[in-house]
Amino acid sequence: MKRLSVSELAPESLIQSQFLVQSKERKISSNGSAYLDLELRDATGAIKAKVWDADRLRVEFEPGEVVRVEGRVDTYKGAPQIIIRAISRSRPEEVNRPEEVNLLDFLPRSLEDPGAMYARLLERLRRMPEGPLRKLLLSVVEDDGIAPRFKLAPAATAFHHAYLGGLLEHVLSLVELGDRVCDHYPWLDRELVLAGLVLHDIGKIEELEYAGAFRYTNRGQLVGHIVLSLEIVRGKLAAIAGFPAGLQDQIEHILLSHHGRLEFGSPKEPAFPEALVVNYLDDLDSKLQSMRAQYAADIGRPGDWTSRNRALGRELFKRPTKDGGKE
Amino acid sequence: MKRLSVSELAPESLIQSQFLVQSKERKISSNGSAYLDLELRDATGAIKAKVWDADRLRVEFEPGEVVRVEGRVDTYKGAPQIIIRAISRSRPEEVNRPEEVNLLDFLPRSLEDPGAMYARLLERLRRMPEGPLRKLLLSVVEDDGIAPRFKLAPAATAFHHAYLGGLLEHVLSLVELGDRVCDHYPWLDRELVLAGLVLHDIGKIEELEYAGAFRYTNRGQLVGHIVLSLEIVRGKLAAIAGFPAGLQDQIEHILLSHHGRLEFGSPKEPAFPEALVVNYLDDLDSKLQSMRAQYAADIGRPGDWTSRNRALGRELFKRPTKDGGKE
Amino acid sequence: MKRLSVSELAPESLIQSQFLVQSKERKISSNGSAYLDLELRDATGAIKAKVWDADRLRVEFEPGEVVRVEGRVDTYKGAPQIIIRAISRSRPEEVNRPEEVNLLDFLPRSLEDPGAMYARLLERLRRMPEGPLRKLLLSVVEDDGIAPRFKLAPAATAFHHAYLGGLLEHVLSLVELGDRVCDHYPWLDRELVLAGLVLHDIGKIEELEYAGAFRYTNRGQLVGHIVLSLEIVRGKLAAIAGFPAGLQDQIEHILLSHHGRLEFGSPKEPAFPEALVVNYLDDLDSKLQSMRAQYAADIGRPGDWTSRNRALGRELFKRPTKDGGKE
Amino acid sequence: MKRLSVSELAPESLIQSQFLVQSKERKISSNGSAYLDLELRDATGAIKAKVWDADRLRVEFEPGEVVRVEGRVDTYKGAPQIIIRAISRSRPEEVNRPEEVNLLDFLPRSLEDPGAMYARLLERLRRMPEGPLRKLLLSVVEDDGIAPRFKLAPAATAFHHAYLGGLLEHVLSLVELGDRVCDHYPWLDRELVLAGLVLHDIGKIEELEYAGAFRYTNRGQLVGHIVLSLEIVRGKLAAIAGFPAGLQDQIEHILLSHHGRLEFGSPKEPAFPEALVVNYLDDLDSKLQSMRAQYAADIGRPGDWTSRNRALGRELFKRPTKDGGKE
Amino acid sequence: MKRLSVSELAPESLIQSQFLVQSKERKISSNGSAYLDLELRDATGAIKAKVWDADRLRVEFEPGEVVRVEGRVDTYKGAPQIIIRAISRSRPEEVNRPEEVNLLDFLPRSLEDPGAMYARLLERLRRMPEGPLRKLLLSVVEDDGIAPRFKLAPAATAFHHAYLGGLLEHVLSLVELGDRVCDHYPWLDRELVLAGLVLHDIGKIEELEYAGAFRYTNRGQLVGHIVLSLEIVRGKLAAIAGFPAGLQDQIEHILLSHHGRLEFGSPKEPAFPEALVVNYLDDLDSKLQSMRAQYAADIGRPGDWTSRNRALGRELFKRPTKDGGKE
Amino acid sequence: MKRLSVSELAPESLIQSQFLVQSKERKISSNGSAYLDLELRDATGAIKAKVWDADRLRVEFEPGEVVRVEGRVDTYKGAPQIIIRAISRSRPEEVNRPEEVNLLDFLPRSLEDPGAMYARLLERLRRMPEGPLRKLLLSVVEDDGIAPRFKLAPAATAFHHAYLGGLLEHVLSLVELGDRVCDHYPWLDRELVLAGLVLHDIGKIEELEYAGAFRYTNRGQLVGHIVLSLEIVRGKLAAIAGFPAGLQDQIEHILLSHHGRLEFGSPKEPAFPEALVVNYLDDLDSKLQSMRAQYAADIGRPGDWTSRNRALGRELFKRPTKDGGKE
Repeated sequence: MKRLSVSELAPESLIQSQFLVQSKERKISSNGSAYLDLELRDATGAIKAKVWDADRLRVEFEPGEVVRVEGRVDTYKGAPQIIIRAISRSRPEEVNRPEEVNLLDFLPRSLEDPGAMYARLLERLRRMPEGPLRKLLLSVVEDDGIAPRFKLAPAATAFHHAYLGGLLEHVLSLVELGDRVCDHYPWLDRELVLAGLVLHDIGKIEELEYAGAFRYTNRGQLVGHIVLSLEIVRGKLAAIAGFPAGLQDQIEHILLSHHGRLEFGSPKEPAFPEALVVNYLDDLDSKLQSMRAQYAADIGRPGDWTSRNRALGRELFKRPTKDGGKE
Repeated sequence: MKRLSVSELAPESLIQSQFLVQSKERKISSNGSAYLDLELRDATGAIKAKVWDADRLRVEFEPGEVVRVEGRVDTYKGAPQIIIRAISRSRPEEVNRPEEVNLLDFLPRSLEDPGAMYARLLERLRRMPEGPLRKLLLSVVEDDGIAPRFKLAPAATAFHHAYLGGLLEHVLSLVELGDRVCDHYPWLDRELVLAGLVLHDIGKIEELEYAGAFRYTNRGQLVGHIVLSLEIVRGKLAAIAGFPAGLQDQIEHILLSHHGRLEFGSPKEPAFPEALVVNYLDDLDSKLQSMRAQYAADIGRPGDWTSRNRALGRELFKRPTKDGGKE
Repeated sequence: MKRLSVSELAPESLIQSQFLVQSKERKISSNGSAYLDLELRDATGAIKAKVWDADRLRVEFEPGEVVRVEGRVDTYKGAPQIIIRAISRSRPEEVNRPEEVNLLDFLPRSLEDPGAMYARLLERLRRMPEGPLRKLLLSVVEDDGIAPRFKLAPAATAFHHAYLGGLLEHVLSLVELGDRVCDHYPWLDRELVLAGLVLHDIGKIEELEYAGAFRYTNRGQLVGHIVLSLEIVRGKLAAIAGFPAGLQDQIEHILLSHHGRLEFGSPKEPAFPEALVVNYLDDLDSKLQSMRAQYAADIGRPGDWTSRNRALGRELFKRPTKDGGKE
Repeated sequence: MKRLSVSELAPESLIQSQFLVQSKERKISSNGSAYLDLELRDATGAIKAKVWDADRLRVEFEPGEVVRVEGRVDTYKGAPQIIIRAISRSRPEEVNRPEEVNLLDFLPRSLEDPGAMYARLLERLRRMPEGPLRKLLLSVVEDDGIAPRFKLAPAATAFHHAYLGGLLEHVLSLVELGDRVCDHYPWLDRELVLAGLVLHDIGKIEELEYAGAFRYTNRGQLVGHIVLSLEIVRGKLAAIAGFPAGLQDQIEHILLSHHGRLEFGSPKEPAFPEALVVNYLDDLDSKLQSMRAQYAADIGRPGDWTSRNRALGRELFKRPTKDGGKE
Repeated sequence: MKRLSVSELAPESLIQSQFLVQSKERKISSNGSAYLDLELRDATGAIKAKVWDADRLRVEFEPGEVVRVEGRVDTYKGAPQIIIRAISRSRPEEVNRPEEVNLLDFLPRSLEDPGAMYARLLERLRRMPEGPLRKLLLSVVEDDGIAPRFKLAPAATAFHHAYLGGLLEHVLSLVELGDRVCDHYPWLDRELVLAGLVLHDIGKIEELEYAGAFRYTNRGQLVGHIVLSLEIVRGKLAAIAGFPAGLQDQIEHILLSHHGRLEFGSPKEPAFPEALVVNYLDDLDSKLQSMRAQYAADIGRPGDWTSRNRALGRELFKRPTKDGGKE
Repeated sequence: MKRLSVSELAPESLIQSQFLVQSKERKISSNGSAYLDLELRDATGAIKAKVWDADRLRVEFEPGEVVRVEGRVDTYKGAPQIIIRAISRSRPEEVNRPEEVNLLDFLPRSLEDPGAMYARLLERLRRMPEGPLRKLLLSVVEDDGIAPRFKLAPAATAFHHAYLGGLLEHVLSLVELGDRVCDHYPWLDRELVLAGLVLHDIGKIEELEYAGAFRYTNRGQLVGHIVLSLEIVRGKLAAIAGFPAGLQDQIEHILLSHHGRLEFGSPKEPAFPEALVVNYLDDLDSKLQSMRAQYAADIGRPGDWTSRNRALGRELFKRPTKDGGKE
């Protein structure tokens, strides 16, 4: 079965496909019978769905699972929805394997290819001068336990880069931006800036859970990605003989201070230029991506302003772009 | 007379030179006689000076004026000071003319040459594509009333770029940094970012007084450089036929929002990406310059930390630089 | 046709009238057919309305337009609504002209007559002593482009004086209150206080859009009424020969500082008594009007407390008035 | 002996007079002998004084006491000081009696006569309509224990009205201002506003100590004038038969909320218009008086700006007054 | 009739019982007929209920009253609700008397017996050393007007101890905790700490209304429990001959400062150790109880985190308890 | 030589002793000759000292070193000072060894014996039930590298427990207080609370430098004791086989959240009761100790109020203690 994606669903058509169950709620209709109110999704988007007469159908599946669906695409309050006739948990062999690839089919994901981004990052790191920082960065990024998660993790559950591959996309953008900024301020320690930009959010691979839905892990919510990043880095540092103690303090400081202010969750505030640069670039790149995502989400919204952007706490102005469209 | 600069004064030598009077206070010594406690300066630094027996000498000069001084360099509490034997207001012909050049001799100034910086900025602006923004920027920067002050103004009375030529140095740095950042985010409207970076602080030429000492003008303190910048820009906009109204709103928004938050004195907060970029780059460049100035000022201070930096509100860590020195 | 106002609609009656369309939404009923959910209003209030079987009726009108309506007044969840049988865009000759009068029929408006308020304000300004301030105020208030909008503009989209004529009502109240306060503190510069009170919100005629519904213009949201007020004032100042420069600085400072604190959007804080007085009286008059409007809105609400007032951020106590009612 | 006041002391003259000892410190001169460094004051100002060879003179007096002084007026660092030859505690019969009159001679005091101000206040209160509020206000203001202290108390130790009679001056100004504001907003309950303005700070007669120097009493610092005012009012209310319970709640609310915001020490925030009016007028009158006092204090200070005003937290602009002077 | 409690209601059963009406709303069903949407409750919990065809039934009762109900327990959206066939206001003789006992049947209440808690508190107070503090505490706690309300009052309308008897439970916990803390810091004045803990919230018996529903009284909302507590204490102090004035100031300070910070509604901040201890223990005990109540409320909620706790402003982690369950 | 302590120095006596050099500054006297202005200290206090004619004496020593001093005790401005005749760096054999004992002689130190406190703590930990937490705590506290520093470290450079042994004194107090609080709330996990109290500040042994003077280490200032504590704990956890992962998350959370709020430097806020208890008890014990130290420091200060306490940001009331003295 060629999987029909959410973006391909045509109104009033019969369909057969596979989706991830984002949410599932049992409700009672006005005639007293039970029905299921679902949200299904794949990488191209999300759609509402209903299973009428839920008690008659066998519905053994949970949110986060991939299901096989047959039904008809209907329109409700101006939006499409699927009226489901048959639904069942996908058999493993139907879901593309390995698991990571599967997730990329069913969850929102970066427009960039994770493999290609990873290669670009690696290429840049290998061009670093020999030394303890190059060793550290490669030992983290090439770690077999870290690399696959680093390619897959979102950068956040909301706010910015909230999609698979988002963390890597964010880091890669920062590394390339950081190189430009260090070209401009040649007195900065480029390798230290680079180290901060690559490592500052690495703990997000443990802070966030992204198999099925984006949410915090217990450890993520109790400890937080700042300290989790530190833990990963310390683990690798311990294995590098002769890593300078002062340099370790500086890297740890950059990680701890990268949110810029205590009230944003940084237990320390940037105390030297390289830490300040990591803080500002991280913040700028996140907010710019968040603005772009807001414009994309509100493209059909009437008027010249978006709805309230959560990262910035305000509405954004859709200024006309150079080619006449709106941002 | 070859003017001896502050940095050239040798202890225990007789000197004859010209300095700017930074401060002047009349005090009574323990033996009951009056003396003058002065601070003299030129572009290379500042030095304390004393006029003993002040009532006997004719001392007709005020802070902010250039004086001709004869005396001996002494040491007091470990620091050099001048014991003055004769002091008089410089005759105009002794002070190099025109006035602007004169100030550059006696006040702290940028290490960069204002003329060269101005030429670099102009060259960049002339490379902009034809259109209303290019017209606007050139009409401001090339204005006969604005250009000389733009070359001379400090960017602040304290905190960052607090020296003659500091505003232009800051703007030029931002323009070149902005180009790099727009290379990285090609979807940004480069000309609009450029316009914001060039114009955002232009009102400082009216906010600050820098003939003699750096302080706020009445208009500067009552109205502020944000609104003064707007006024200058509006004056020029009125003279450009057919300047798009929507574009004017955007430029004004960038200027009004460039401090980023209401509590920092911006009456609006950045509502589109180009405004956000101007806000972040301005803030980053200012803070980095402030950090470097702090390191320079505290170079002889014992320990690995500077005194409290006013722009950041904290002590800075003097991390070892790549060549083994301290930042 | 005598226009039946919203406040005159009797339940279970057949009606024929004209209203402004405040909002319009297309929905699907449980039987699958489309209907229109409308909010109609005129100056006396607002009412819900429904157009069943929307696909059969020709419904060519948009929110903000005036429509001619036939239907029956029904009751739904205890509130009246109109079940519409016929609806069409009003022909221009049916809507009273000129446009300003028309809006006053269909939007919430001040209980005071704008013309009478305007006359009172003008009379007061003409009694000012001859001089630059009198010239300035009259040139603003009597400007042909400003006067009609000044009479019509609301003072805000919500919070206080959020009705047509609200801005003028607020300013007139302030001018008369200001006179009393200057009687009490005779050392205040009465004309300067007066100038601040008349001009401080004048930019709202450009910040807000009030034809059809109250909302911010793009320019209003990007630039804000504080700076828009300044622009109007500067335009007029430029035309007054010999206006004292120092006085202009003071007026601009009053306008810029009238919100009192940076975090309320003022880029400067009041630095002399007249600026402080304008700030306090503006704030007091706004909040008192907001309290009264809250009491009026919650008059039927059970209990001794209103719902949360948005301007004050708290519930208000309905204290018994002198004649035994509740405030 | 005709008492020579501080403002009458001429340099290089021999004097004999009485002053209040504001501070007294024992120091060691460079030649090793002990001397006393004093600050003396009366209602017209303060002056430094020295007692050389302190160990030889009998100096039995403490700060806060009135002393009889013989000496010579000298000049030290440009300011006058008294070189004391003889000093002794004033005999009671030398200090004018009763004690209150005495304090008015030696401490800063209102330019208005307390007796006259008190009479004006009383006259206004007696014009109130008969009723519980009139009864309450008169019972407080005419109380034998309260009246003398009410006439004498300062309104604060610093910030505003920080002189003897300052509290009464502040209250009287507020009452007269309040009448004007109630004329403007005739729907306000004038008697309730009046009650709030008269009673809101009455606890300051117990919060502050003003015999000798202005400082907080223990009870004032532990409990605060807001709650002390409430206590005084409750004491009087208990004695008025049939005082309406609801009205008592409202008066208490006005007193508790008159600082306007929790962080300013009000445990409640104004919840009805009369409470809001008391809060705003109190704040406005205090800040205006504080500004005027600042201008007076900084009259000789060079430049167009005062030093930092503590009540407002900023420098004030000395705008030219109508008659050409500076504010 | 044996009253069936909410916790005993079985789905699909016919029932006959008495409940308190928590809320009552008249709605229109989709078929156009009116129905009542009720929330009924007793001490064991709350349940939704519907009266179909409301216009036919005589329904003379209001929220806060106890009603006699006949109907059937149904399930709606997975939750039980009562479909009511007959409902009428309970005759007084049906509601257990005296009133206090009645309330305990129908409102949420402490798991501890108020009488037993009161006895424990009294026993502790009687063990205090003879002296003014013992006298004060007993005179408050044993007051005939205070004691019954002290046993019944909740400690808050929400956040913590929001049930009948909650205030006493909170105070008793604090007294016993305070004894332990004073054992640890033997230099604390144990009787003063005890006094603060017993008296700090006593005003809540007047701030809150708890007959029918928990809400603020007018006096409570206008004046607040901090000042109401003070009033009760002062009333009792006045009756104790020779109570030391300094000690009264200290007790008043403890009451006024027990919220710890101005922005939490304390007009004073703790200025000596005993005041600090009362502030910390009160805050700690409240927040711990609030956490426990949150865990209890969210016991069936999936996942390891509760919903947002209002007292702490964040979600709580359900850590596994020692016996394997979740907190 | 029997070492004479600072507290034993009698005015006008000749002395010979050893002290730690706290500060050393070279100054020029009014006659032009250089002198040394020193502050010397030992565990009993600090005293000023002068070396006149500094250029003649060989003065080879630095702040932080112990010196051997001969001189005379003089009085200057009412305070004693030493006029030094001979001064030299102590020979190692003169300074008692081992080093730790030495420091205890020359720096402010806890009144409790560190060895005894350590024994009490250990005894308590050994009474814990067998299990991973007991193992963890003992492995930290008994670690050969940690134990000596744990006995010696101050808890802060200022604010509270700012003396040698202060950290251990604080922790021991917390452990004993924690036991009492867990007795009161028996549902708390006592071992987890205990673990949090013992470990929360352990990183201070690396954050602070206390050989010679109390100041932050570079690593302390860059990384902070919260994260340093975590590092120590993780190091030990790694060595305990089978330590439950969930339990590790909880301990880390307690450490990270023990400052209670983001703006106090905690990157997480307490999310379960045991974390909240650690946060509150730590804060309470620190503030109480800080208050007591303030009372001790200000014992001779006139009036009933201390100077401003830095930990609380306010003056403290010296309430009379039970035995009639002042707190």
